[in-house]
Amino acid sequence: MPEFMDVHRNMTGITQAALQAAHDADLAIQGDEGVDFKSAWADPESGLVYCLSEAPSADAVRRIHERTGHPADEVHPVPIKV
Amino acid sequence: MPEFMDVHRNMTGITQAALQAAHDADLAIQGDEGVDFKSAWADPESGLVYCLSEAPSADAVRRIHERTGHPADEVHPVPIKV
Repeated sequence: MPEFMDVHRNMTGITQAALQAAHDADLAIQGDEGVDFKSAWADPESGLVYCLSEAPSADAVRRIHERTGHPADEVHPVPIKV
Repeated sequence: MPEFMDVHRNMTGITQAALQAAHDADLAIQGDEGVDFKSAWADPESGLVYCLSEAPSADAVRRIHERTGHPADEVHPVPIKV
């Protein structure tokens, strides 16, 4: 399954609880699109959030994040990893 | 130890072998700055590379990447993760 890194901007001040709640909301419906959100990392100061997932397509990732109210600003396939 | 996500742009066309070589070069000297590069993900089409590390500071991450010839365009602390 392809992997994707998506980026959210403008999440300044995000807390551990808020990131967990957003992640849990994604996990609850990700099966509808065959997505598997694996990890997310946040910088409350810059407002950047990075999410790593396995998914059939970037659009599948976009649709889950849109339905849970935190649309991604960018979704990039990351076919190469070390 | 704090975690950091750093971003490299303009790596269009990067290959698995090139990412591995860059990562290996970082690993070879990371101890000089107390950095631990954990994973890296690349999108050859957009040229984006994301690296996750544990490090004492963003500047420590920057110095390793600079010495190995692939300076990071951004280094963000990611104190929140799920």
